[in-house]
Amino acid sequence: MAIKESKTDVLIIGAGPSGYMCATWLARCGIPFRIIDKRSNEIFAGQADGLQSRTLEIFKSFSENCFDFATLDQGWKVANHVTEMCFWSPNDNGYLTRKSRVPDSAPGVSKYTECVIHQGNVEKWFNDSIEHFSDGKVKVERPLLPISLQINENEINNPQAHAVDILIKKLDDNSAKPEQFGKIANGLFRAFDGDQEKFYKDITKDNEDDYELIHAKYVVGSDGAHSWVRKQLEIDMDGDHTDFVWGVLDMVPITNFPDIRSRCAIHSKESGSVMVIPRENDLVRFYIQLKEVDRDSSTETKEFSGTTEERKETSKRIDRSKITPESILKQAQEIFKPYTLEMTDLRWYTGYQIGQRVSPKFGSHDRVFITGDACHTHSPKAGQGMNVSMQDTYNLGFKLALVCKGLSKQDILSTYESERLKVARDLIAFDHKLSRLFSGKPMIPNSDVMDGVDLDEFQSLYRQGSKFASGTIVDYEDSLLISKKQSNISSSSPDEEGRVFSSLATKVPVGRRLYNDHIIAQADGRPVDTLERFSSDGRFRVLIFAGDVKNHPKNFDLLNDFQELIDSKEYFAKKFTPINAFANSVIDIVTIHSSDRHDVELEDFPSFTHPLDFKRRCDYWRLYSGVGETYHEGKVDIYSTYGIDKKKGAILVLRPDSHVALVSEFSIAGLNKVNDYFNGFMIPQTNVKLPPKDPQFDDVKRFVLPRLAV
Amino acid sequence: MAIKESKTDVLIIGAGPSGYMCATWLARCGIPFRIIDKRSNEIFAGQADGLQSRTLEIFKSFSENCFDFATLDQGWKVANHVTEMCFWSPNDNGYLTRKSRVPDSAPGVSKYTECVIHQGNVEKWFNDSIEHFSDGKVKVERPLLPISLQINENEINNPQAHAVDILIKKLDDNSAKPEQFGKIANGLFRAFDGDQEKFYKDITKDNEDDYELIHAKYVVGSDGAHSWVRKQLEIDMDGDHTDFVWGVLDMVPITNFPDIRSRCAIHSKESGSVMVIPRENDLVRFYIQLKEVDRDSSTETKEFSGTTEERKETSKRIDRSKITPESILKQAQEIFKPYTLEMTDLRWYTGYQIGQRVSPKFGSHDRVFITGDACHTHSPKAGQGMNVSMQDTYNLGFKLALVCKGLSKQDILSTYESERLKVARDLIAFDHKLSRLFSGKPMIPNSDVMDGVDLDEFQSLYRQGSKFASGTIVDYEDSLLISKKQSNISSSSPDEEGRVFSSLATKVPVGRRLYNDHIIAQADGRPVDTLERFSSDGRFRVLIFAGDVKNHPKNFDLLNDFQELIDSKEYFAKKFTPINAFANSVIDIVTIHSSDRHDVELEDFPSFTHPLDFKRRCDYWRLYSGVGETYHEGKVDIYSTYGIDKKKGAILVLRPDSHVALVSEFSIAGLNKVNDYFNGFMIPQTNVKLPPKDPQFDDVKRFVLPRLAV
Repeated sequence: MAIKESKTDVLIIGAGPSGYMCATWLARCGIPFRIIDKRSNEIFAGQADGLQSRTLEIFKSFSENCFDFATLDQGWKVANHVTEMCFWSPNDNGYLTRKSRVPDSAPGVSKYTECVIHQGNVEKWFNDSIEHFSDGKVKVERPLLPISLQINENEINNPQAHAVDILIKKLDDNSAKPEQFGKIANGLFRAFDGDQEKFYKDITKDNEDDYELIHAKYVVGSDGAHSWVRKQLEIDMDGDHTDFVWGVLDMVPITNFPDIRSRCAIHSKESGSVMVIPRENDLVRFYIQLKEVDRDSSTETKEFSGTTEERKETSKRIDRSKITPESILKQAQEIFKPYTLEMTDLRWYTGYQIGQRVSPKFGSHDRVFITGDACHTHSPKAGQGMNVSMQDTYNLGFKLALVCKGLSKQDILSTYESERLKVARDLIAFDHKLSRLFSGKPMIPNSDVMDGVDLDEFQSLYRQGSKFASGTIVDYEDSLLISKKQSNISSSSPDEEGRVFSSLATKVPVGRRLYNDHIIAQADGRPVDTLERFSSDGRFRVLIFAGDVKNHPKNFDLLNDFQELIDSKEYFAKKFTPINAFANSVIDIVTIHSSDRHDVELEDFPSFTHPLDFKRRCDYWRLYSGVGETYHEGKVDIYSTYGIDKKKGAILVLRPDSHVALVSEFSIAGLNKVNDYFNGFMIPQTNVKLPPKDPQFDDVKRFVLPRLAV
Repeated sequence: MAIKESKTDVLIIGAGPSGYMCATWLARCGIPFRIIDKRSNEIFAGQADGLQSRTLEIFKSFSENCFDFATLDQGWKVANHVTEMCFWSPNDNGYLTRKSRVPDSAPGVSKYTECVIHQGNVEKWFNDSIEHFSDGKVKVERPLLPISLQINENEINNPQAHAVDILIKKLDDNSAKPEQFGKIANGLFRAFDGDQEKFYKDITKDNEDDYELIHAKYVVGSDGAHSWVRKQLEIDMDGDHTDFVWGVLDMVPITNFPDIRSRCAIHSKESGSVMVIPRENDLVRFYIQLKEVDRDSSTETKEFSGTTEERKETSKRIDRSKITPESILKQAQEIFKPYTLEMTDLRWYTGYQIGQRVSPKFGSHDRVFITGDACHTHSPKAGQGMNVSMQDTYNLGFKLALVCKGLSKQDILSTYESERLKVARDLIAFDHKLSRLFSGKPMIPNSDVMDGVDLDEFQSLYRQGSKFASGTIVDYEDSLLISKKQSNISSSSPDEEGRVFSSLATKVPVGRRLYNDHIIAQADGRPVDTLERFSSDGRFRVLIFAGDVKNHPKNFDLLNDFQELIDSKEYFAKKFTPINAFANSVIDIVTIHSSDRHDVELEDFPSFTHPLDFKRRCDYWRLYSGVGETYHEGKVDIYSTYGIDKKKGAILVLRPDSHVALVSEFSIAGLNKVNDYFNGFMIPQTNVKLPPKDPQFDDVKRFVLPRLAV
């Protein structure tokens, strides 16, 4: 049939947090893309709500210079900050007691701590961000259902080929509304995604005007736990459900329990466990262990279109009709005794079975990728789901942008699976352990209940897990994009926390995201947070820590020697930047000396630290002092924070996601290592001239930008 | 003629920063009001740009719990922070030299320092805020011209009477466009406001459908330097213009001057002075002293409808056609020598004469008020105009809201003039001194130029003025709303900075805004900035510093004794709150103890510190610890910050604008003083029942709110 055909660089299937994060990257980098969702509207209540430290850092990194719209970093402002974690369990007399109080987020790992807000808010901020970055050109298209997907294998070696064909169908608005609280009586966790078949049963009836064949260079399947994209790739998940059944309530509690505004893990003696998560607007989320729920035997005979693995799983599902808010509350009241618990302003409820599953592959041919719940599912209580899902596409998005722009070789795309599969497996293992300890009956010392869960072990695991859960210790191994090997690693094996350090920056774990600190702008003396200066704009960064140029004149001489290399067409700065693009628009070179800012003058430094553009406007924002007293914000010493010697200096290379790719010497040899790094995967641009009217490139907001527009 | 008539509580004339701030208060407090402007569109460039510390604090105080819209506190995020002030002048050889560098904002006075952004952004955030607070019901109505104003004197003693009649006329959109750069060749500073007469000349021609007669309880004239409202009240300004003529350029400079991204005051030897103010997007504003500008003699014979005083002034006006960007730049180049200065991306320019004028009265009959430029004008270089203008209506707005709601007696309105006229006069005096020192030729020590301005005196005045300019030291005298007399003042006379302190809170100047610090929520351990907790929501606040209730059990007993008074219908807490309103919705009672939060439990405190509402939902956010170690943000000790004894405690009363109204003993006698304070001007509400469907009152966002809605 003669249906509509179209082309796009990237098609994102699924507008949840994972799909949205990918879309934000692509919009920020000016890549043509589309994002579709089969639901006709957004989420109003329930689902995920935890925002972890690394996620909040990422949100902040997208907000630089974004005027006048509700950016992602609203999260930190409006979400409920969870400050404290309290452990409650029976004392020797079986009486429910506060056993300990600890910080919910481990101090020192990030400037942000865990906070909690309804997923619907997060999706709204993403929507605004995508509109903002794409100048209103891209919005989520819904309800659109993917029908078929085909990878044309003879085209997969041409990175710019539109090698994937996806047939999509426009749905009727009403039939595509997700189940929401208030509309139907109840719903299992992620129940909607389980009802895939209802979309496909009427397909034969409709007319071809509803269809469109999209030819995409790349496809991202962010379509949830029952991912259609994953099924097309014929990837089965590893893992299974457990028999533990949990109920969830979002409501305002009326209670005399003293820690209701803190995060609490409560183990009762006989009645199961509760996780308490205080939320925005005085709401509290309760995860409540349910003791008796009947299995729903009817599903065994039900028609189902999923894979064998899924049919098997369905047969074990719980009977959702037995789970009501009242039944969940009743169980919670038992667990909370002797404290009272009543409920008002019920917002949402559901029931779910704990399961841990992970996909053995995260895509196919580096052309079609799956992300988020499509490749890992687990229990929600560690507040990880939304975060790891967004971090998947925070990893994938910038790589797709680099390849689509023709700046990087296609080979870098394979690092998505190698980097993120490990994270998913670590997460599943952590969740598996924690869930079992949380779901078990507690051992009560000096009592007859000696065969239960050791609560000290539970607390200890929980606290250890806090750094992991923060998302800040994710560590990527050697690849095209990470060069631990070239980084003068000081020890042959990782330390007890799994970190490896360069002898040149003894506190910067190579492969992990660079911890933020302040630097002082040479031009105006303002202390700047590196999280804002090193923002998510798609650029690599070369940080030249030049040391104390005032007291070590050789350092100053060396910096001057760099000028020639940076001017050379054979060297990374010019070689990988299109000839008519702004300087620093692909690789952002930032110099951070350790002299007192008042002892040196900007004009004395080589011109690459304050270059002029085609209008001779000066870019003042690439020369900083890393050490000194500020007028209003105290002392700054990023050299100490990073363990960099003020005489020797160092060079750090950051990927666009702020992971440290390479640490090398502050020397010509060190700069040559940086050059080698980029030669490994970047494509020379010395013959590339950007078309001046190309909407991808002539708008500074959309192409990576060397300086602000005026 | 039978023209349309309507009623409103407050009519604001003029949608500049001053009118907008008033509107924000009224919208926040749920008062019916309208805001009109004769211009058909907003400002696109130029005009005011400095945001001072106190203004940024006020912006922040309106942003609490405002989800999903660009709030006023965007200012701090997107504006250019001015960190440093540099003084340049000729050295002994006459060569232009950096004489000193100092912090632009005095350290320690506020968490915010001066920043700079185009006034149009500020007005946009105000627009959004008003829409948000009024649920989209109020927008600026434009272009609407006020035609006549009449105060019905026989009604002025009834606070709820619509005692002011204003006739307004709808203008044609095109004729009401302000002069903007790009549309016309140039424009004098505030040139548009000077062209009042053009609006009035065609009035006879039109039909009555364009007119509306508004009956307002109160009218606020925020209509600029050539205020129509002021003229109706027949108030003449005191003061005059000087002969100093200045040009202004907003552009991106191309220069080798090293401090171009800092605020600079440059005195050249022979060529005059320049003020450099670095702005957002790499723009810089230059205020440049012009040496030779012809007087425009034609204005003497021109028709003009202003007062005698204004006609006089007009005759001295400069010839605007002689001032071009090129002529201003040329003069700047002379001053900058030997540094080079070129210009690109010119955004706006103008010329103005320095003048300092202040109105002797700020309104009439406490029914019609004038604010902002309508009652004080001065040179723009101290970055004060927009700030003092907004602070005028930040003072007036909450008073109007209290009176319109029927909560406070009309008498409080007279404090607007008594409090703000003093500020205006201080500002004019400061500006007068500074302008003359800045405009004069510098004295060069050991040279033949010994009769000029002493630059040490200039710098010293500038630095002294920095605290004043920050807006944080504004001090209101005794009145119905300020009770220094009852505050146990420790010394008979103010200190060298003009402050008076209570012996109970030895670091809190009574009459000034309370400096912010952190307190720790008892319920969840989160450190909270008082600037956010004590937000601008129209409520008074009673802060009970109960001291160390753990180690001084008598303090705990006393707190328990307060419960009875707080429950009494004869006492302020109940007496001045409508009987069916939320507790704490008029007067917000906050208890801050100094015990370790972990040593005490919320449930042990009397119920006024954690009251239940009609649904039995608990308000957890009125009990705090003021002293302790936080998990992530270091030590907190607000008792030390405020100089309050941890055994004796104290009670502080804050006005809705956070100015300290009263400091009293933490005792029954002290609480009785608080009661006396409110009895002085509040109206008993013990027979007042809010109509449940009244849109003013049943929406928690609009009425003062005791707790968040869920």
